[in-house]
Formats: sequence, structure tokens, C-alpha cells
Amino acid sequence: MAKHTLLMEGPDAKGLIFHVTSVLFNNECNILRQDEYVSPNGWFFMRTEFVSADDFDTQKVLVDLRVKVPSEEIQFRLNTQKKKDIVLLCTKEHHCLSEILIRYAFEELNANVLAVVSNYNTLQPFVSKFGIPFHYVSAEDKTREEHEVAVLKTLDIYNPELLVLAKYMRILSPDFVSKYSNKIVNIHHSFLPAFIGANPYKQAYERGVKVIGATAHFVNNHLDEGPIIAQDTREVDHRYSAADMARDGRDVEKMVLIKALKLVLDDRVFIFGNRTVIL
Amino acid sequence: MAKHTLLMEGPDAKGLIFHVTSVLFNNECNILRQDEYVSPNGWFFMRTEFVSADDFDTQKVLVDLRVKVPSEEIQFRLNTQKKKDIVLLCTKEHHCLSEILIRYAFEELNANVLAVVSNYNTLQPFVSKFGIPFHYVSAEDKTREEHEVAVLKTLDIYNPELLVLAKYMRILSPDFVSKYSNKIVNIHHSFLPAFIGANPYKQAYERGVKVIGATAHFVNNHLDEGPIIAQDTREVDHRYSAADMARDGRDVEKMVLIKALKLVLDDRVFIFGNRTVIL
Amino acid sequence: MAKHTLLMEGPDAKGLIFHVTSVLFNNECNILRQDEYVSPNGWFFMRTEFVSADDFDTQKVLVDLRVKVPSEEIQFRLNTQKKKDIVLLCTKEHHCLSEILIRYAFEELNANVLAVVSNYNTLQPFVSKFGIPFHYVSAEDKTREEHEVAVLKTLDIYNPELLVLAKYMRILSPDFVSKYSNKIVNIHHSFLPAFIGANPYKQAYERGVKVIGATAHFVNNHLDEGPIIAQDTREVDHRYSAADMARDGRDVEKMVLIKALKLVLDDRVFIFGNRTVIL
Amino acid sequence: MAKHTLLMEGPDAKGLIFHVTSVLFNNECNILRQDEYVSPNGWFFMRTEFVSADDFDTQKVLVDLRVKVPSEEIQFRLNTQKKKDIVLLCTKEHHCLSEILIRYAFEELNANVLAVVSNYNTLQPFVSKFGIPFHYVSAEDKTREEHEVAVLKTLDIYNPELLVLAKYMRILSPDFVSKYSNKIVNIHHSFLPAFIGANPYKQAYERGVKVIGATAHFVNNHLDEGPIIAQDTREVDHRYSAADMARDGRDVEKMVLIKALKLVLDDRVFIFGNRTVIL
Repeated sequence: MAKHTLLMEGPDAKGLIFHVTSVLFNNECNILRQDEYVSPNGWFFMRTEFVSADDFDTQKVLVDLRVKVPSEEIQFRLNTQKKKDIVLLCTKEHHCLSEILIRYAFEELNANVLAVVSNYNTLQPFVSKFGIPFHYVSAEDKTREEHEVAVLKTLDIYNPELLVLAKYMRILSPDFVSKYSNKIVNIHHSFLPAFIGANPYKQAYERGVKVIGATAHFVNNHLDEGPIIAQDTREVDHRYSAADMARDGRDVEKMVLIKALKLVLDDRVFIFGNRTVIL
Repeated sequence: MAKHTLLMEGPDAKGLIFHVTSVLFNNECNILRQDEYVSPNGWFFMRTEFVSADDFDTQKVLVDLRVKVPSEEIQFRLNTQKKKDIVLLCTKEHHCLSEILIRYAFEELNANVLAVVSNYNTLQPFVSKFGIPFHYVSAEDKTREEHEVAVLKTLDIYNPELLVLAKYMRILSPDFVSKYSNKIVNIHHSFLPAFIGANPYKQAYERGVKVIGATAHFVNNHLDEGPIIAQDTREVDHRYSAADMARDGRDVEKMVLIKALKLVLDDRVFIFGNRTVIL
Repeated sequence: MAKHTLLMEGPDAKGLIFHVTSVLFNNECNILRQDEYVSPNGWFFMRTEFVSADDFDTQKVLVDLRVKVPSEEIQFRLNTQKKKDIVLLCTKEHHCLSEILIRYAFEELNANVLAVVSNYNTLQPFVSKFGIPFHYVSAEDKTREEHEVAVLKTLDIYNPELLVLAKYMRILSPDFVSKYSNKIVNIHHSFLPAFIGANPYKQAYERGVKVIGATAHFVNNHLDEGPIIAQDTREVDHRYSAADMARDGRDVEKMVLIKALKLVLDDRVFIFGNRTVIL
Repeated sequence: MAKHTLLMEGPDAKGLIFHVTSVLFNNECNILRQDEYVSPNGWFFMRTEFVSADDFDTQKVLVDLRVKVPSEEIQFRLNTQKKKDIVLLCTKEHHCLSEILIRYAFEELNANVLAVVSNYNTLQPFVSKFGIPFHYVSAEDKTREEHEVAVLKTLDIYNPELLVLAKYMRILSPDFVSKYSNKIVNIHHSFLPAFIGANPYKQAYERGVKVIGATAHFVNNHLDEGPIIAQDTREVDHRYSAADMARDGRDVEKMVLIKALKLVLDDRVFIFGNRTVIL
């Protein structure tokens, strides 16, 4: 018996759920969980978790689905559950990186952490405790383009399915991003869209906010503007300096990043324009 | 075009979703939202919101469903959306009652509030502002049984589909409860199962808790032990007296009760043993 | 025995707490609660709640304080606890207004609600239930200036110590604001500084946020930029339309406004540049 | 310039704040932050953070304080800020232990982690990465008394000021507890007093709760009944199995334990009967 996830999206039409459940029924599958969403402008999303017999034939099921749902506008992705290959990028701060590495070390993530890449070597000794390759790709004496080329070359060694920016404090060029389109997850240390850009805690302090936050999102070409996956907030008061906000904010950041990462690793996130649908 | 909700539950079997979507498809209905849940011991729950053409035939659809799903163990409830008739019971505290009445007055609830019944007349002047019948059924000089008979007689006037105990500070007898089986929603002023029974804030204060809470639940024969619909919590600190906890707790209570009430009024709650499934 | 609140602020100096506690000690007062805060740039804030004998002489204590703390840069405000006179401004939405009126009706606020002023008469029937004067000051056929003059004239009748904008959907001119400097509390339906200005829920929906919020703040000359008193947030997901966000957001708005209002009415809020210190 | 914390408690009396601030003023100290609390039954607590000149004389200040406040019922504790020596006890689960070790490794805790003691050797390889002594004290073939003697003997090597039970799954005898009276912090995996004892997530699942929680508390002779330091909660729904609750609950547990631990390490917690006062 094997477990599978079928992701489906496209223009809504009468009978879509019926057709999919019919194909799965005829292929001796039992649905464990099925969630749908139809956007106000008529885009249909469905995630179906199901179990099959051992002789499950992925290609046959995909063909059967296409026969019943001939419109090429409707996409199917059928994943037999397996761990995704990921690479982590970081700079000097450890809190997001260590949260991921600890969970990886204790096999709590649906991922293989292949390597850590950093523009500083600060965290090398820490990462080495976990037996994971650490690539120090300094940006010194390099143009942004040269640095990105060097990073991309390092990433090529691993061919990751997902990049996680675990407090990687450099802005990626559109070129870089396009090479990992919809495959880069970032954690931003504010409650977006408040405090876009540099020093969000300093901005938050100066505005005198009573709540701080963090945002995990996919990266697109515009800084801090990609589709949001998860956000959370925490109360602060007038006693908090910008540094205090940063200190407590780190706890929010790491927990929000982990939440988003788990959703992505479990195939629960659809990207829909500049938004996410999470089923 | 009309909007409907189909609730279905019973032993899980291969093809249930397929059969239901097939019947709806063949009856020219379009599904807006469908949510399922299968319990670990194999009980299947599904809630389907759909729109039909104007000539929708409820009886025909129910017959079609039974043909496809012949097992009598599987129950269907098909509701064309309409407001439920409810009666509110209260004692002296206003906060839950006023929250419901205000929302009712501004047509924000999927309910008709038919009447308020109370063992005190304290809130009569307030309720009268809203043009809702107020029945003062004093418990003085009455046995518990006599009082309940009087209350039940008053309820009989209205034949409500749901009773809401909006801080009704009397314990209902099993006899009373059995007459409104699975139709009574209560708000308890603690985070159940902590602090069952009387004076929960006093108990919470004495235990030195750092968080207080409230619980909305269906009422069964055991005090504060029916299926939980919604819970929420709020931080407190050592400066809170039991009275301070009660004061802030009231805000939690009213918001939790409203949350639970909306779920029940929108046909989103299944009772499953001593638990609820909310789809 | 009477209860008092002493608010004090000014440049920090050694011995300030000592001097104040010394004066209160010598005047036979007992401190119930004392909270201080010193800002990073050396501004000292202190709030002292204390009880006195019945023959307490406010003027004598203020003179004694000034003798011990001669610097005129340091301000003292000594309030014997009493209810503040407030006027509420609203437009068409009831949720903030009704929350305040209900609490006022049940004597849960440290305030006298003198009147409600609105640019629409929508809520007049509701307000009249509470026996509070309702002034309908239409903005139709008036310039902004003319409308504000009319509103100010109405306010003059009541001479309120505080104005509460309970979803008053008009922008106040700097002239208006200057007449009630630091005396206007507004509720904004977003987590400021995100989504300043009109239609914040539409903005939030389009950005695809996973958390919405509300902000209560003092009003200054720049739209949505005055000192923040309280904020709170609530989770949303992709199923929320902008209208759904607005519906659930209303619950956050009213609870945040009540929280801020209570803090202001209890003399717990200092304005410090564009920030608040809450003791 | 040195930083100090003065903790004071005892029966309330007029002038206590005045006397303390007077002594500090006369000893050339400047108060950074001072917080007080008086319990309803008249017990006074105060925490004062202050800076002194380098030639600060602790003994002289304590003598000066006693002269002004002669009542022996009033206790003073004057700590010049330094890291506390702690030992961690664990069993097989890593999440609380790893959270503490990571923060210790990056110097984010006001503590020296001297050693880890465990009744299993499961976490030895992990702990060894951090260069901290790991003592495996098996309970096999030992009575509870024998095991505790062995643990106490190990602890004697380190003479810790605080023991942290980081998911140490054994119940301590009153004898053991009395040796570290008010010096043991435990994390319990439920929102106490709900679900005291074994398998709280199983209990929570069976009760059908909609919110789970965790509680950090000092240990006294009664299981799960010592003074609570911190609590937090998280929403769950009907889809959560007991195992799912345990999985998500671990995130709450580790963050609550860290919060409590920081408060204790920063000398912010007073024990007051079975409650805590946190200033």
C-alpha cells in the first residue's frame, strides 16, 4: 500500500471532483483527505491524499485523468510521498538555520538537507556539527553578479528542489530568482507589507508599534513582495528597544519559517498569482 | 439558483465522495465547497455546499443519494440555507446575551432569536430594547424539577431548534437535556477540562495560572463535559485578582460563544461521540 | 480614604522616585502601584496609584513635589479618580459604537458618554435605545471645512475631554485635530503601518496576507500616523474574500478599540513623540 | 559602573519604596527599572534594577537597607548580575534540551550549562556535539530511591543553582525535591491544571479539546502542582490525533520552557505560596 498526493488546478468546471474521484475509485484507490478551493474568479484547486494498492500505475492514472478531464488548462501533479532535496542559504544569524538543522537531525522534516551555503563563514563550525557540507562563498571583492554566479555554481552540485533563505541577508537578482522560479522560500523579519526592506525592527521601533511579526514567502523579482505562505505576530511594548524587538522577533521568525517550510515540503501550497492557496 | 448544504456521515467506504459528486453532477448542481474527514476508527464525515438550478428537487436528490449509497448506516441531511430558530437562556450577566442580541439586531447571525428566558428579571429592561420577548421564570420557591417544567413550558411556545445558554447559571437535569438532545450550546467560563464546576476564575486564581480561557460546548448529562465546539485563551499575570480574571474572561467568553454559535448556525458542526468535527 | 493617580514625566535625574515617594510618605499616603519607564534618550515616566486620608490636599502635595523636584521640565498630573467625559463619532458601521455603548450601559467604562455625533443618521435608532443624544451632522452640500465647523459646534455643547472615532469614516483636518490635540482616539482597520488609507481589507486581500489586524491610535495631522495605543491580529487564509476579512476584522477592531479606550480612561497612557508609553 | 538587581519582599508597610530609593540614592546608585506588587493580603514585592559606581559596597548597602527597614520579616536579595549555574535533566525527547543547548551555544542565555543528566543515553551523541558533559544514570535494576541517590551524587559534582527538567519523564520524590527546594523548573505538556499526570495529549485528544497548551512551573512535592511560571496554548482541530497534538505541542513546550527559564535566570520570579509573582 502506497500513499500519494494529487495536486490539481485550472479553470473551474462542473464535475471536476466527480471525475477525479471516479478515476481514483476505478483504480482501486481510497481517498484519505481531499480539499478544494475555487477562487472568486473561477480557478479550481484540489489536493487529494490517497492510498493505492502496491501495483499502482502512476502513468495510467494520469492518462485516465486526462481522458476524463481533457482540458489542457487543467494541470495535474501526482507525487508519491518522498523527501524533497533542499539547500539552505544563510549569513551570520543562526536561529532559523539551527531550527531547521535540529529538526532535520532528528528526522522531523520531510526533506534532505544537502548543503548550507553562506556569504560568511560565521556558522561553519556550527553546521559542521551536523555533518552537512558548508560552502562559504564570500561576496568580498566580487560584483553582485559574480557572487551569484559562484553561488549558483555551488547549488548546481546539489540540484536542489527548494532553496530556503534562512536569514540570507542579500537581495537576489531577477536572474538568480528566475533559475529557481517558485522554488525559493524566504523569511522576512516583519509583518509584510509593513516595513519592507532593511532594518524592519528599527522601522517598527520608530513607528511605536505594539505588535511585531514575521513573514515567510516565496521570492519573486520584487523585494519582499512574493506570495506569502505564513505569518505570525507577537506583542511588544514601549520597553522594547529595536534590539529587544529583534531578539524576540527571532523566535517568531524561526517558527514562521518552519511552519511555511513544512507546508511546502508536504505539497500543501499552490502559488496563485501573488498569493498562496494552502490545502 | 439556490444554495444548499449536504451533511453526510457514516462508516467509511470506497467511493463515497464519488457517489455524492456523481449525484450532484447529474442533478445539475455545482459544488462550491466540500470538506471531508475520516476519523481514525473509520467514520466518514462530509459537508458539501452547492448551488442548484431553481427547480431543484430535494426529495429526488435524497432518493438518488440513497440509491448510490444504500447503506442505512450512512446519514444524509440536506439543508436549504435558512435561519435557525433559537431561544436564549440567561441569568444576570449581560455580556454573552448582549453580544448575541446586537449581532441579531444588525442581521449578522443566521438565526431568528425568538425569545429570552431567565431565572432573574435583571436583564429584562435591556432585552426589551430589542423587541424580543423576555420570560422571567423565577426559581424561587420551586424545586429544580418544578422550575425546569416551567422553563420547558415556556420553550414549548417557541419550539426552538437550538437553545443557547448565554451564562445561564443553573445546572440542567438529564431530563431537561434529553428534551433538547444535541441542541443546547453552553459557554463555560474556563478552559475545560480545567476548573469544571462553580467559580472557575476563583479556582484559576488560586492555582496561579498565567492563562485563562473559555469553552463553548454542547450540553450533555454530565456537567461541563459535553462535546467542545470552540475554546480560546488570554494571558493573565499575578496582578489579576479572581475578579479581574472574571472581567477579562468575559471578553473571551462572549467571543468564543459567538464563534461556536456561528459554526452551529452554519451547519458546520458534527457531534461525534464526545467530540465535534467541524467542516 | 480616596484613590489618586500621579503621572509624572521629564528628563531623568537621580532621586526622582525617592523624592516622589518621600512626598507621598510625608503626606500620609500609601502607594498601591508604581510603574516607571526611562526612555533610551533619558526621558523619565512614572505612574503612581495611591490612597490618601480623606483630608488629602492636592495643592499642598503638588507644591511639596515641586519643592523637591524644582525643574519645570518635569511635569506632574495628579488625578483623583473620576469618569472622563467623552463623545463618540461614527458613520454607518455599528460594531465599535455598540461595543462602547453596551459597556457604558452596564457601567463597565470609566467614562460618561455624553453624545454620539455622526455624518449619517443610520445608527440613530440604535443609539436612541440607550438614551444618549444623537447628533446627525450631514456632510452633504457642505465643504469639508463647513462640515467640521458644524461638528465642532456640536462638540462645544459637551466640552468633552476625549473624542472617540468609532469608525468615523472621514479624515479630520489639521485644524480640527489641533482643537482636540492628543484627545482623539481612532480605530484603523489594519495593522498599521501596513495598509494606510482607504480600503485596507481590499489591500490586504490583494497582498495575500495570512494575518489581518487593527490599530487604535491617537490622531495627529498625518492620516493613520499618530501614536499607537493598541494593536491586535487574527489569522486568515486564502478562503477569505476582502469582505470576509472585513467581517472578521470588525471583531478585532472593536476589541482593540475597547482595550485602548480603557487604557486612556484609566490614565495609563503617556504620549511620547509619535509613540505611547503605557504604565 | 556595575549593574545590580535588588529583590525585596515582606509585609507591606508605608514608606518601603521610599526607604529603598533613599538608600540607593545615598549610595550614588541610579535606578534603571523598578517594579512593585502588593498582594491582596498585604505582601509586598519589589524588584529594582540599578547601576552603581565601581566602588559599590554590597554589604554597606544591605546594612543601610536594614537600618531603614529593620523588620526581619522583610527579605532583601542583592544580586550583581552574573550567569547562574544550571544542570539539565532529560529522558529521550530532544526538543526542550536542544532549544536550551542551541541558545547556550550562541550565548543567548544568562546561564552556564554545566552538564546534562539523563536516565537514557539516547541524547548522548547530540549533547556531545556541544561539548557539555553527559551523565547517563540508568534507572534500570534500581529502585526509585537508588536512582535518585545516583542522580543526586552526579549533581553534587556541579553544585547547580538551578535544575531544569527538559522533558525528564520521571517523578521526583519529595526527598529529592527538598534538596533543590524552589530550584527545579519543569515543563509539563499540558495546560495545567488540565490533564495532570501521564499522557496529557492522549487525555486532550479523548476530551476533544480545541486548544492544547504547555506549562512551565517550579516543582514541589505534588506532581504537576508547583507554582506556575509561564503557560501558552495553540489551536488544534478534530483532524489532530493524539500524536499530532504531541508533535505540535512540542513547539509550545520548548518556547514556554525557554520563556520561563529566561525569567528565572534574570531574577524576575518570586515564589509566593503556590503562585509566582513576576516583576
